[in-house]
Amino acid sequence: MDLITIIGLAAGTLTTIAFLPQMFQTWKTKSAKDVSFVMLITFMTGLFLWFIYGIILGALPIIIANGVTLFFNFIILLLKIKYR
Amino acid sequence: MDLITIIGLAAGTLTTIAFLPQMFQTWKTKSAKDVSFVMLITFMTGLFLWFIYGIILGALPIIIANGVTLFFNFIILLLKIKYR
Repeated sequence: MDLITIIGLAAGTLTTIAFLPQMFQTWKTKSAKDVSFVMLITFMTGLFLWFIYGIILGALPIIIANGVTLFFNFIILLLKIKYR
Repeated sequence: MDLITIIGLAAGTLTTIAFLPQMFQTWKTKSAKDVSFVMLITFMTGLFLWFIYGIILGALPIIIANGVTLFFNFIILLLKIKYR
């Protein structure tokens, strides 16, 4: 694998798993008032469009990275709605 | 412009501007305890690698989208450090 591909994979992995600590913190503290609701909705809409973009292009890395990030943010949204 | 390009541009715009409402909410409420510090650091590291990836590829949309998102998250990080 060449350096550029390794950098791209590392980038995609980090911007995806970044939302795991947010998910666990919100779940653990049962508090999400400082997390912006508008941010979550706007970010998820954008991620969904990236997901569609990946499907049209047939680009599996775009589909997986954005699909998983969308799933994590959906959980954060549910926790946000539950705990405010 | 074809549909796929429009979807990609809309996706990139949304996942970038999504962090503006978070920035303004944190600045206004002066509270960021529910925003995960580990999330910010991990996400910013990933965005920086996407930025480098864009520079190596010479892909301006990747450079701009991730550069601006990185800048917004850097401001959120500063507010997080200031207000906890």
